[in-house]
Amino acid sequence: MTRETITSSRKRDHLIICCENPVEAGDAGFGDVRLVHNALPECDMDAIDTRTRFLGATLSSPLFIAAMTGGHPDTLEVNRRLARVAERYNLGMGVGSQRAALENPELEGSFTVVREEAPHAFLCANLGIIQLRDHGIEWAERAVEMIDAQAIAIHINSLQEAIQPEGDHNAEGCLAALRTLCEEFPYPVIVKETGSGISAETARAIRGAGASAIDIGGYGGTSWAKIERLRASDPRLAELGEAFLSWGIPTVVSLREVRKVGGPIIATGGLRSGIDIAKAIALGADLGGMALPLLKPAMESEDALLAAVDAIQRELEVAMFLTGSRTMRDLSNVRTYITGLTREMIETSD
Amino acid sequence: MTRETITSSRKRDHLIICCENPVEAGDAGFGDVRLVHNALPECDMDAIDTRTRFLGATLSSPLFIAAMTGGHPDTLEVNRRLARVAERYNLGMGVGSQRAALENPELEGSFTVVREEAPHAFLCANLGIIQLRDHGIEWAERAVEMIDAQAIAIHINSLQEAIQPEGDHNAEGCLAALRTLCEEFPYPVIVKETGSGISAETARAIRGAGASAIDIGGYGGTSWAKIERLRASDPRLAELGEAFLSWGIPTVVSLREVRKVGGPIIATGGLRSGIDIAKAIALGADLGGMALPLLKPAMESEDALLAAVDAIQRELEVAMFLTGSRTMRDLSNVRTYITGLTREMIETSD
Amino acid sequence: MTRETITSSRKRDHLIICCENPVEAGDAGFGDVRLVHNALPECDMDAIDTRTRFLGATLSSPLFIAAMTGGHPDTLEVNRRLARVAERYNLGMGVGSQRAALENPELEGSFTVVREEAPHAFLCANLGIIQLRDHGIEWAERAVEMIDAQAIAIHINSLQEAIQPEGDHNAEGCLAALRTLCEEFPYPVIVKETGSGISAETARAIRGAGASAIDIGGYGGTSWAKIERLRASDPRLAELGEAFLSWGIPTVVSLREVRKVGGPIIATGGLRSGIDIAKAIALGADLGGMALPLLKPAMESEDALLAAVDAIQRELEVAMFLTGSRTMRDLSNVRTYITGLTREMIETSD
Amino acid sequence: MTRETITSSRKRDHLIICCENPVEAGDAGFGDVRLVHNALPECDMDAIDTRTRFLGATLSSPLFIAAMTGGHPDTLEVNRRLARVAERYNLGMGVGSQRAALENPELEGSFTVVREEAPHAFLCANLGIIQLRDHGIEWAERAVEMIDAQAIAIHINSLQEAIQPEGDHNAEGCLAALRTLCEEFPYPVIVKETGSGISAETARAIRGAGASAIDIGGYGGTSWAKIERLRASDPRLAELGEAFLSWGIPTVVSLREVRKVGGPIIATGGLRSGIDIAKAIALGADLGGMALPLLKPAMESEDALLAAVDAIQRELEVAMFLTGSRTMRDLSNVRTYITGLTREMIETSD
Ligand SMILES: Cc1cc2nc3c(=O)[nH]c(=O)nc-3n(C[C@H](O)[C@H](O)[C@H](O)COP(=O)(O)O)c2cc1C
Ligand SMILES: Cc1cc2nc3c(=O)[nH]c(=O)nc-3n(C[C@H](O)[C@H](O)[C@H](O)COP(=O)(O)O)c2cc1C
Ligand SMILES: Cc1cc2nc3c(=O)[nH]c(=O)nc-3n(C[C@H](O)[C@H](O)[C@H](O)COP(=O)(O)O)c2cc1C
Ligand SMILES: Cc1cc2nc3c(=O)[nH]c(=O)nc-3n(C[C@H](O)[C@H](O)[C@H](O)COP(=O)(O)O)c2cc1C
Repeated sequence: MTRETITSSRKRDHLIICCENPVEAGDAGFGDVRLVHNALPECDMDAIDTRTRFLGATLSSPLFIAAMTGGHPDTLEVNRRLARVAERYNLGMGVGSQRAALENPELEGSFTVVREEAPHAFLCANLGIIQLRDHGIEWAERAVEMIDAQAIAIHINSLQEAIQPEGDHNAEGCLAALRTLCEEFPYPVIVKETGSGISAETARAIRGAGASAIDIGGYGGTSWAKIERLRASDPRLAELGEAFLSWGIPTVVSLREVRKVGGPIIATGGLRSGIDIAKAIALGADLGGMALPLLKPAMESEDALLAAVDAIQRELEVAMFLTGSRTMRDLSNVRTYITGLTREMIETSD
Repeated sequence: MTRETITSSRKRDHLIICCENPVEAGDAGFGDVRLVHNALPECDMDAIDTRTRFLGATLSSPLFIAAMTGGHPDTLEVNRRLARVAERYNLGMGVGSQRAALENPELEGSFTVVREEAPHAFLCANLGIIQLRDHGIEWAERAVEMIDAQAIAIHINSLQEAIQPEGDHNAEGCLAALRTLCEEFPYPVIVKETGSGISAETARAIRGAGASAIDIGGYGGTSWAKIERLRASDPRLAELGEAFLSWGIPTVVSLREVRKVGGPIIATGGLRSGIDIAKAIALGADLGGMALPLLKPAMESEDALLAAVDAIQRELEVAMFLTGSRTMRDLSNVRTYITGLTREMIETSD
Repeated sequence: MTRETITSSRKRDHLIICCENPVEAGDAGFGDVRLVHNALPECDMDAIDTRTRFLGATLSSPLFIAAMTGGHPDTLEVNRRLARVAERYNLGMGVGSQRAALENPELEGSFTVVREEAPHAFLCANLGIIQLRDHGIEWAERAVEMIDAQAIAIHINSLQEAIQPEGDHNAEGCLAALRTLCEEFPYPVIVKETGSGISAETARAIRGAGASAIDIGGYGGTSWAKIERLRASDPRLAELGEAFLSWGIPTVVSLREVRKVGGPIIATGGLRSGIDIAKAIALGADLGGMALPLLKPAMESEDALLAAVDAIQRELEVAMFLTGSRTMRDLSNVRTYITGLTREMIETSD
Repeated sequence: MTRETITSSRKRDHLIICCENPVEAGDAGFGDVRLVHNALPECDMDAIDTRTRFLGATLSSPLFIAAMTGGHPDTLEVNRRLARVAERYNLGMGVGSQRAALENPELEGSFTVVREEAPHAFLCANLGIIQLRDHGIEWAERAVEMIDAQAIAIHINSLQEAIQPEGDHNAEGCLAALRTLCEEFPYPVIVKETGSGISAETARAIRGAGASAIDIGGYGGTSWAKIERLRASDPRLAELGEAFLSWGIPTVVSLREVRKVGGPIIATGGLRSGIDIAKAIALGADLGGMALPLLKPAMESEDALLAAVDAIQRELEVAMFLTGSRTMRDLSNVRTYITGLTREMIETSD
């Protein structure tokens, strides 16, 4: 197998593993957060406005379809469904890492389908920070062009790199590459973790490099340590994945740290309902992204995906109604109770 | 079925569901509260005076029979028994929502029985805030007149409205309607939640509108999300009910928030013994209301109901004795220990 | 049955219930307390001096045999064994309530055996505060004389009075009776709870009345609510006992409150090892009393009782050694970690 | 059996018990500590430098092979394997107590093998503080010479002495002996607990006596109370061991207290992975020592031991990578979240 096909087939492996196994680990903290009920909401639930401004675009909902897939022919259908729903509901959507298609243009189809099916949607291209560093701004341009994206997400997955057989162990130069990109690139740059979260310190470094937004990618949802442990044939790597199962900053804790630094935020990692999205917004996020909860219905059928998105949107609207939030701005001002381990971690980090 | 009979038959459904299913969710917080024992109480338990002043009336006990039923012929017997016990023990009592009978006067019998059986009791009429807004002060007048009530409770059940098939999704204008009622109505107005609690902010809005008292209706007792989930034939509504099972402010937390705002308070939601009533009083409530714990014996027989009320009253008196409280005023000054999740939520909200 | 024999036979019932049933409830808090280990104790474990001054006497150990029994012929043997061990080890010992023998002098034998077997031991007479109030200082004198006691413990058991069929529900006048006794009585007066603990407020009242010492009798050990529930033939009283199973101030919490008020303290209620005694001393007690853990071996044989006391004493000495405490004074200065629910309750009460 | 052979055969017993039974008790606290993830580590995992300066030596890793064995012929092979790995990876290593060989030079072989197999490694001699006090500086000199050690660890095991049949119950004079040793001995002196931890107060005494370093030996790993309970044939000693199963200061808590006092620190007691070593360093330790996790593979084969050490080292490097630590100094500055019981204990002790 060539290098390219390794990357590509790994993409298919991931989808299958995610659908057939419990790939979540830990607790993102949403269970420790409660929105303060407003018994006199003084608003019309059916007129609630979930429109959200994000990086210059107006999305119909803060529900963001988080980066998941593409790069292997089998993933095309999944991306098609996700894109059709994004178009239909005017949701923001990220594609999975485009590395495979950048390495091997024959694989572009599983990405280009997204723009074909979602001509008006806000799309995020996706590139690993290692690939950015190694291939420079040119790959970022090609990634954006491939799907005619509005923005690019540069993802970081150091944990996965560290524990997977094919991992790149050298993270040097990533910050410099990021700074260059932010200075020279005509599109907004989102820096995105993929399951270990962003600390206050890292958020400052990212903002300092000039990024337009941060995607939390916190601990408590899909766990790459778990996925890599399942994939590992080498028992030593399986053991290593095991040892890092509880590594990372829970999404809620990370959100509170990043919020202090400022700038637009997508909260992903363990959001599992429209109520979790509402909590994320109240805690300071602009969008709430989901990957795993959309993956399973997306692999089933477009109808299943529509039903899932409908349910999430309904939960969000009910949560907004019950907190008296007509708009996302209202929701962002709702008071919360924070308890338990999440509270302890936040207090430690204050 | 006409609109009216839908409302009416729903009332009967509710009673049956409540008796045959576990319809409680969460934790009202009373387990996290401990009354400080007074080893030298210096009082006579048999002379303890549980009389309580509330909105100008003198009740023999702070145990309040919370609003439950009426509006369907099958509910008449339950209301009769509740009323007979209210009369016998001089307890305050609320009737269930009178909407069905206001829509269809033929159903008044299940409400008027209450005043017939309890000619001297302090009775609260009951009307939804939506009906108040839509039908104005006239319905409030008719509701009070129907049972010759001393006060009216305007109940709020936004969560239930949001997730039930027949729900009214528009809460606009409720506060204005409430303000008008409080200004023009000759009877005291109690604003009452039904399971999600009242926050400090909402309490200020309610007091600002001129209400005479607040009934907490906190989280942790009878759960309408759970009842609606059980009733739901549409799986999407069942799912929605499920998602909101943990929505609401626990009664104890709400009580502490509302107390800061001031005014008479009825604590309902998850009180399950006379000790819980004592805790509620020590935490700042004037009355402690119960619905579910009285419903089951009331559906059985008058004797069963009497026994239940006797047990609650005995527990209250023992708790007063052991805290050295001769009167309700003494009890309201008893020190408490507050721990656990309840404490964390209270600290968060301070 | 006459009044006297009721009191007497109840005493025998209690012993049997305590030996055949789990009669403990809740948590006294000792598991939440840890003594700070001293890795360099600089003392000789075999030379540790556990002598303790208490109300003018010098006891060989802070282990106090808490008031338990007497008043029924069957209890004589238990008291004999306890007394022989008290004499042998120079431990302080309390007898159970002497009411039965004061009511019916024929029953004195089960008490007088204690002084016969323990001619030199520090003995505490025992009288209920209700009996003190009703019969005055004369009964206190007779109680002390009966066993030639060094002090008298006036016990309070309001919870038990409130929930037992024969209970005295009127606690009025107790404080005045106590004040009179303290003023006029030639012996030291210890005020003693029996399972619900003493609050800071009550401790101030007791000290104000002139008592020489306080016996905590805290929550978390032998539970009279549980015992009365087991004894109750009337289901309503069983239910009432059930409702009050978690009533009371845990021993550790009570100890911290009473310590702030000052004066000698016996900590009883849920101490279950010599380590617990050491913790109680470090938290501010002068003696650590045990009832239930000594009752079972005492009902078995003198040897079993000796073995139990030896084990407790050994644990105490090891705990002293490992905290570098040569004397009780050293132990009383040992630092502790306090965590969990106990810590939360203490913080609430500060 | 002579005194010497008792000491010697006990050493073999310990190894067997440790391999065949669960000999750990409690929680060292590492689960309550989380390292703050650095999403942009800017370092090369394969170039991470785990070199650590300790008492003048440069070790290749902070992983320290904690004192375990020697003194019985059967232990020779275990020490040989540990030594070979120490030499190969340039790890610091402590031998077990040399008392048996000091008492009976025929047993020296199981110690001298260590220096034979590890000619360049940093080795710590090991002597009990009781033996130091009783035999003076001469035994310390012989212990160091026996293995040509770079330093000597004076271990303290008061808990074990207190509860084991052969235990020395007198700890008087230990501090003076330690002070003399520190003043006169040409080698660095490490004072080492063996499972109960060092408090702030004790750390001050140790530093005051002139010791060069402290080995925490905290609670939460191998438990001598548990081992002695398993060894005990006398049921009273078994019971005593049982009673002290939860005695001691958890390693993390102890580490925080000792760090406040200053000086080099080895953290041992319940470290179970390279991540735990990383946490210990971030919390203020210089080295992270392990006994039990290395004992089992060392008893199996050299290969098993190598694999275990490789896994630990890999975990440490990944943890360093994910916190952006190129060096141990970087790691020592990484921020941590501390929660749960550990946090409560630390707050209590502040
Ligand atoms: C199957 C799958 C593939 C993913 N691939 C990518 C990817 O290529 N690029 C990326 O930035 N994030 C990727 N993610 C991470 C998600 O975008 C998201 O940050 C993370 O899964 C946490 O969200 P969740 O708990 O809702 O799944 C992937 C997630 C899943 C489940
Ligand atoms: C069967 C049932 C019917 C109820 N109907 C009403 C109602 O019509 N109006 C109202 O204000 N509250 C109603 N409630 C709410 C109660 O008054 C009370 O606030 C709530 O149940 C919490 O108390 P609980 O936990 O003791 O049941 C009802 C409760 C029950 C159990
Ligand atoms: C069988 C039994 C009888 C008791 N009788 C008395 C009594 O007569 N007077 C008294 O002051 N306390 C009495 N107590 C209470 C004890 O003195 C003690 O305060 C209480 O049991 C808590 O200690 P423990 O948890 O170690 O049992 C009795 C306890 C027991 C177990
Ligand atoms: C089998 C065994 C023997 C030990 N012998 C000694 C010893 O002789 N001297 C010493 O200082 N510590 C000794 N220890 C204690 C360890 O050095 C270490 O402090 C303790 O076991 C805690 O680490 P762990 O939880 O990783 O085992 C021994 C530990 C084990 C498991």
